[in-house]
Amino acid sequence: MIGLRNIWYIAAWDYEVTERPVERIILEKSVVVFRAADGSASVLDNACPHRFAPLSRGRVIAGNIECAYHGLRFNSDGKCIHNPHPNGCGPIPPALCVRKYPVVERHCAIWVWMGDKVPDETLIPDYHYIDDTENYRTFRGVFELDSHYWLGCDNALDLTHVTYVHAGGLGGGADNVINERRELVRDGNSLWCKRYNDDIVAGPDFRRFNPALNDIKVDKQQNVRWDPPGNILIVILYTKANEPDACKTSVYAGNMLCPVSDTKTRFHWSVSRDFALDSDKLDDAMRAVTELALIKQDKAMIEDQLTLMGTIDIDELNPVYIQDDVLPLRAKMTLDAMIKTESQERVDEALNWRTPHISLTPA
Amino acid sequence: MIGLRNIWYIAAWDYEVTERPVERIILEKSVVVFRAADGSASVLDNACPHRFAPLSRGRVIAGNIECAYHGLRFNSDGKCIHNPHPNGCGPIPPALCVRKYPVVERHCAIWVWMGDKVPDETLIPDYHYIDDTENYRTFRGVFELDSHYWLGCDNALDLTHVTYVHAGGLGGGADNVINERRELVRDGNSLWCKRYNDDIVAGPDFRRFNPALNDIKVDKQQNVRWDPPGNILIVILYTKANEPDACKTSVYAGNMLCPVSDTKTRFHWSVSRDFALDSDKLDDAMRAVTELALIKQDKAMIEDQLTLMGTIDIDELNPVYIQDDVLPLRAKMTLDAMIKTESQERVDEALNWRTPHISLTPA
Amino acid sequence: MIGLRNIWYIAAWDYEVTERPVERIILEKSVVVFRAADGSASVLDNACPHRFAPLSRGRVIAGNIECAYHGLRFNSDGKCIHNPHPNGCGPIPPALCVRKYPVVERHCAIWVWMGDKVPDETLIPDYHYIDDTENYRTFRGVFELDSHYWLGCDNALDLTHVTYVHAGGLGGGADNVINERRELVRDGNSLWCKRYNDDIVAGPDFRRFNPALNDIKVDKQQNVRWDPPGNILIVILYTKANEPDACKTSVYAGNMLCPVSDTKTRFHWSVSRDFALDSDKLDDAMRAVTELALIKQDKAMIEDQLTLMGTIDIDELNPVYIQDDVLPLRAKMTLDAMIKTESQERVDEALNWRTPHISLTPA
Repeated sequence: MIGLRNIWYIAAWDYEVTERPVERIILEKSVVVFRAADGSASVLDNACPHRFAPLSRGRVIAGNIECAYHGLRFNSDGKCIHNPHPNGCGPIPPALCVRKYPVVERHCAIWVWMGDKVPDETLIPDYHYIDDTENYRTFRGVFELDSHYWLGCDNALDLTHVTYVHAGGLGGGADNVINERRELVRDGNSLWCKRYNDDIVAGPDFRRFNPALNDIKVDKQQNVRWDPPGNILIVILYTKANEPDACKTSVYAGNMLCPVSDTKTRFHWSVSRDFALDSDKLDDAMRAVTELALIKQDKAMIEDQLTLMGTIDIDELNPVYIQDDVLPLRAKMTLDAMIKTESQERVDEALNWRTPHISLTPA
Repeated sequence: MIGLRNIWYIAAWDYEVTERPVERIILEKSVVVFRAADGSASVLDNACPHRFAPLSRGRVIAGNIECAYHGLRFNSDGKCIHNPHPNGCGPIPPALCVRKYPVVERHCAIWVWMGDKVPDETLIPDYHYIDDTENYRTFRGVFELDSHYWLGCDNALDLTHVTYVHAGGLGGGADNVINERRELVRDGNSLWCKRYNDDIVAGPDFRRFNPALNDIKVDKQQNVRWDPPGNILIVILYTKANEPDACKTSVYAGNMLCPVSDTKTRFHWSVSRDFALDSDKLDDAMRAVTELALIKQDKAMIEDQLTLMGTIDIDELNPVYIQDDVLPLRAKMTLDAMIKTESQERVDEALNWRTPHISLTPA
Repeated sequence: MIGLRNIWYIAAWDYEVTERPVERIILEKSVVVFRAADGSASVLDNACPHRFAPLSRGRVIAGNIECAYHGLRFNSDGKCIHNPHPNGCGPIPPALCVRKYPVVERHCAIWVWMGDKVPDETLIPDYHYIDDTENYRTFRGVFELDSHYWLGCDNALDLTHVTYVHAGGLGGGADNVINERRELVRDGNSLWCKRYNDDIVAGPDFRRFNPALNDIKVDKQQNVRWDPPGNILIVILYTKANEPDACKTSVYAGNMLCPVSDTKTRFHWSVSRDFALDSDKLDDAMRAVTELALIKQDKAMIEDQLTLMGTIDIDELNPVYIQDDVLPLRAKMTLDAMIKTESQERVDEALNWRTPHISLTPA
């Protein structure tokens, strides 16, 4: 599938990976993710180069992964370091190795770099709310979306859907869409759409989550950040109307979409809050609302949308835009440009490398 | 898929459509069918032109349909009449509209015209038995056939299959196929195959349905009518042998096949009778026989047939014809010619429109 | 699919076919297999030439097969011998016949010849252990493998996988792969890989199957034979170390893979032994071990392997070979050459037949 490769993708939440290897498919490439005894995570091509058995069916022995088909062992650099045939210790052909992918474990997630260029850690988006357990309380999850990852981004980046898709729940309160001010802000690789709603009644869910919001008027911010290719942060911030330091109530919701294939997405999500930090009960209540919204309501809509579109690229269908599409449209234009640049650079490099002595510029 | 477009298809039985919108797929085009409060039915393209969410997931408000994704509302002509963004009442780009399809509700069915030409109501085939409740009693149903609709027509148009596929039930009595006279009659758009069997014993099912047929010899007619593209009427008429006014017992069975895709068909069926008009019990008995024949026996055969053929057009496989294939063959030749003509006319129109000043005929 | 056609395939075990016809798909061709009252088996094209209904839905009447759709009857040569339309006895067009395939019933299996050439019975591989009930006891089975048949052969032909895929069961005992001598032997159409292991402890499964192998050292042979295209015999033979006539314990395991399509295989298997010929209990114990190995462990590995490969031909992926691949590699080279020759001969014949008077060799 077409997609940005010189970028970080979440292959898994930290808790999903142990010494028992797991398969992940990212941009249609199957990789194996596992940890050594010291806890360090590795990501290798999943196909054993001998007979293409999935290394993810194997086991980790002293930090090396053993293929479950014929027992070949590969170290965390992807080099074969043991061939038991014949007689327990056979020769190792130099070609017997698999590709290793750069890995960074950050914000409780295992990020993997799928491209050929030198990995750049500054491109990992900031989700410090997740690992800053002193100031925030977080719960997380992941589910499979049977749709193209960009349709998931398109959904999350335009919060006007909340009133309709999540009617009665997150979307309750028609005041959500009255008298809003908006701004679009570019900040490095990030794009922000910020929406301000002053002197309103808080939505029913948030009044339930934090009773301090009952019986008062509030100022509300709903800020959505996009980082390429499929990383979204939704910040919802309530303060008492005209008293910006009173009744502060904020939620930081992460949606990190990892493209599996054109019709499958691994959807990682997190919800962090800065209030009621010790309430298990509130975790349960907020998790129920979140899972209903993401795994039932959004998932059904986005999957039906792909079926009806009959293509993976919504732009091919010549959609009619409305004003509130500004963030998803800007984000998609940015991403498309990045993918085009990356693809052009690969062509340039390849041509340069194959024909070093030929110049295309006239003397 | 290839199919006749300037013609009527049954999108649904009347009872299937309420204010709650439903999706129907006809010739691979997804449409939404719904009713206004006054009961009038509308059929529109199902894809909202904004983000291609299915309008069939939405709700009807005062005869207009609201998209469940972002709340855009379309009237029964397909024009957007409300955009809630931003702030409850946003601008409506002129392109924000969907295609409306001509609809006629007749014979308890919602007929939709899928072509570009002016709809012609005289092309709706006559199934007045269904709504003439004074003289007939009718029960109806619909099921999904995982096969090409023509294979379903091919089945219904050639009743010689009854003895074999419905052995023991509808097909009981070997006399069904002995000493028959046949004729093929063209009547406007309709094709009839009429079969006469005189002085025989009625089939076991009919003797059970109408005990007056027991203990007498009967004259039997089995007349099958085809109307393009997939509408069939099967008339079975018994009278006492040589007394054409005695013991009249007739059944009018409708099979109206709506092509969903090359491998899926929506099969509407009806059974009307002119005897025992007030018997619920007979409804149950006849429904059991009908559903066994259509939904178990025919369906299994027709689906296996498509799988084995490996193509949707039986003519590609060079079948060997026998005499009794005359009605399905004539019907298919007629339909193929109609589709070819329609396709040629579209080409002619398009060329004419795009190159108005160029004449292909030499001066 | 690509595959050898002038060769025998097992369509079914003998016990699978009665007068009730069954469908089998071999090299993507659907055939019907049935027996006459005298027990003789026939294999015909499954598609009735009239409307392409599957003859396998029909019934056998006096050795002829009746189509369940319109009642046409075909004899075991594939010729239509009865058309009931109209009036019980209609004309039979000469084209109304289906292809008959040569059949041989041997070693308790129904072998069918899928090619156009004269069938050669000497090409049926020797599995006499199955029907020699005086000297061997056999149990058999069949299952569907959702993978390419060659990946199943590749698995069975290289027994080094046993230690890993069947760890703890068949593969127990690391001595299985220490100090082995091997030889590759070509014997007519068959290829043998023979492995000798002297003065070792027998594997835990075999010590359980035959307690005589406990407490002694043994000499072991593991001989694997391949016959094109997908027929494998695995012979495991234990004798007391240095006493080749003592404690003889042998098992003859057949794996006969019939290619259904590129991604489906019908996997017939048999296990014959020359000891404990009257033990039902040992049947049960050995069947459990066999089914675990084949239907759970090997099947899962081979199916995952195909999914990960994303192609049906492993050679396209440029695998890295190790020494123990010798038998599967030689077998595949042999098979590929046979397929190429067969395909070339078809071209030559066709050209020769179509242009009999033109010579491509210069005068």
